[in-house]
Parts: sequence; structure tokens; C-alpha cells
Amino acid sequence: MQTHDSVSVLIFNTTSHCFILVKQFRPAVYMSEWERSKPKPLQPAEEESAEPAPTEAKVPEENQAGDSSEETSSHQPPASAGVTYELCAGLVDKPNLSLEEIARQEVLEECGYDVPVTKLRKITSYRSGVGVTGSKQTMFYAEVSDEICVGEGGGKPQEGELIEVVKVPLHEAMTFAFDESIPKTMGVIFSFIWFHSNMSPKYKISTNV
Amino acid sequence: MQTHDSVSVLIFNTTSHCFILVKQFRPAVYMSEWERSKPKPLQPAEEESAEPAPTEAKVPEENQAGDSSEETSSHQPPASAGVTYELCAGLVDKPNLSLEEIARQEVLEECGYDVPVTKLRKITSYRSGVGVTGSKQTMFYAEVSDEICVGEGGGKPQEGELIEVVKVPLHEAMTFAFDESIPKTMGVIFSFIWFHSNMSPKYKISTNV
Repeated sequence: MQTHDSVSVLIFNTTSHCFILVKQFRPAVYMSEWERSKPKPLQPAEEESAEPAPTEAKVPEENQAGDSSEETSSHQPPASAGVTYELCAGLVDKPNLSLEEIARQEVLEECGYDVPVTKLRKITSYRSGVGVTGSKQTMFYAEVSDEICVGEGGGKPQEGELIEVVKVPLHEAMTFAFDESIPKTMGVIFSFIWFHSNMSPKYKISTNV
Repeated sequence: MQTHDSVSVLIFNTTSHCFILVKQFRPAVYMSEWERSKPKPLQPAEEESAEPAPTEAKVPEENQAGDSSEETSSHQPPASAGVTYELCAGLVDKPNLSLEEIARQEVLEECGYDVPVTKLRKITSYRSGVGVTGSKQTMFYAEVSDEICVGEGGGKPQEGELIEVVKVPLHEAMTFAFDESIPKTMGVIFSFIWFHSNMSPKYKISTNV
């Protein structure tokens, strides 16, 4: 599978003391939930070693987008089942730009903050999806303020992105991170706990661990 | 893409005060490194918007497996470029077993410890590969001791797994986690920092953060 490396950014707004995340509809997550919601075979013992049926590439129908409605006439999950909370992130697909410059662009496009490249601090890098893509992801930390908020963010709707900017107050961060009813990536959990270990003393604020 | 959910396990050996990881050759990681090592186009400015060439599915040749050798006659990276350090992990592909039972089997098969299901503590769950698979991963913590080490681990060589069990001493854990020259998954970094925040006080041992 051809892949690009990627960058992600933990954004902390020092004006409101909130983390800035993005909330996105992810088709792959939706299909995973769809698969999970299918009726189980009647004789699971005999199915144990059988290959699972291929995922049907069906898209959610209209009138299923209501976040609050859990009612579906079939076993088709609501559109909200495909939504995840994630760090601002993007692919490294511009060979002339540094990782920091790409991260800067993503923060601007997705979250609306015009953060200088020099304010991006690398947290670390690691391998993502080792069984599938094996690409390298680099995580940054960026402190922003309301003063450098120059737009609403939201990504590139013309490229099919459905991104909503979400604020998580610092004092609720660790509860948010470990609340399994909130679908999120490991990057969110890891970066919040990293902040707690590395940055919280600076802000002298409890992150309710 | 059809996927399974997965489990991963942070294993801590209380006899030797080491974390137990697995070291694996990952074809996807190797191909990602191969792609990265290809000569760059001479006119990158004109290539910026072009689609990258598809990854060639070539396997590493013989005599490239030496960990210490960085010398290659072509731009083909050494086999060691495809190795990553990971948590013990496995797919949820047995519908009759609980997540804990699957995690228990993986710890036994990959690392050789016969840990009771009741000793598995859930850390949290999250979405992995939201852009590709969207599957759900559940992370556990297991304390083991030399007494329940009943085998060498190593996974299932007959299924193509190339797994080596690796011990990381507790006092080196955070240096290991943030050493970017050691290829690893975010699960390793996150779980080490989780241990530092949650379990270190119990062991009254510094993890050199």
C-alpha cells in the first residue's frame, strides 16, 4: 500500500487553556462500526475458523446524520458512529516543505491558527500502522492564543474533509482522554498524558489525573 | 478494507523490573523505508503535485539481514530498516473469546508468559488507523514474573511471524521511548508514559523522565 508519512500537532490555546482537537467523520471508522453491528452468525462455534465476509462498501443513507438519534430501523449505525476526535494532522505530501511547515499549514487549514514555524516543538516520532502502511508519524506541540486565530479552520471541504474544531478544557483533559465512550485516536490520549507529564508544571494546573 | 479489532498488552516483569516488548520485521515498514530511500527526482518543484510512483513489491535480498551493516550497494535499505519495537499484540479474530482471553493467548504465544486472564488490567481503548482501517484497539497492562515464564515466545513462525522478545529495563524506559533512532509504535511510547504516571509510584522507581 502506497502511503505518505504524516505529522500531527497537539495544540494548546494559552488564552482559554484548552486543547484544540478536530472532530472528523471517518469512513473507515464508520465501516468498522457497521461491520461490528451486523447480526452475529447463529452458530458461532462453527464459524470460528471461517474467514469473515468482506466489508460491503455501502455509504450511510440520508437522514442518518443526526448526532442525537440512535434509532435506526435496520442494523445500520447512525452517521455519528463514524466520528472520531483526533489531533490536527496531515500527510507529508509536499516534498519542498519541512515537517514543521507542513504541520503549520495543517494547523492553519484545520484549526484556523496562524502559528509561526518556530513555535512548533517536536514531541517525538514513531511508526503508525505497522501492519498496513508502516509510515512514519511525527508529533508536534504548538502553543497558540486567541490573538493568532485568523479563521474558523475546518479543513478543505472541497477535498471532502468534514472537520469540526473542538476545544477540550485543560482541567477536563485526562477525563476526556480515558473516557472510552468518546471515540478518539491514541494520539489524543498519548499527547494529553505527555502534556500532563511535561507541560502541566509550567501552567501549575491540575489535569485531574 | 476488511479489518479486525485488535488488542495490545504492556507487559511488566516484576522479577527483573523490565518491560517485555516484541521486535518484529514488518514488511510495510520496510517498504516505507525503501520508498524513502529512493533517489529524489531531479526537479522536485515540477513533481510537487504529481502522484508518487507505486511501491514496488520487492523483498529484501539475502545477506542484507545484518543489523550492524548499513552498507548497501544500491539504495535498497538493509533488512533491519523494517524492524520495529512493539507491544505484544494481536487481532481479535476469535468470536468466542473475550478480549482478555485473546490478549492472554498473545502474551503466551509471543512472549512465553502464562498470565491468568484475571491479571489483565484494561488501560483504555481507541481507534487505530482512522484513515485506513478504523478498527478499535484495546490496550491492557499485565504484570508477569519469571515464575510464569513457560516458553520462549516468538509467535507462530509457521504463520510467517518473525518475533523476538526484548526486555527494556524500567530505569531506561523513558529514554528508550523518546529515542527516535529506535523504531517503535506509538503504543510503546504511550504505555511507557502511562506506566510512569500510574504505576511508578507503586514501584518507587524513577523512570528517568
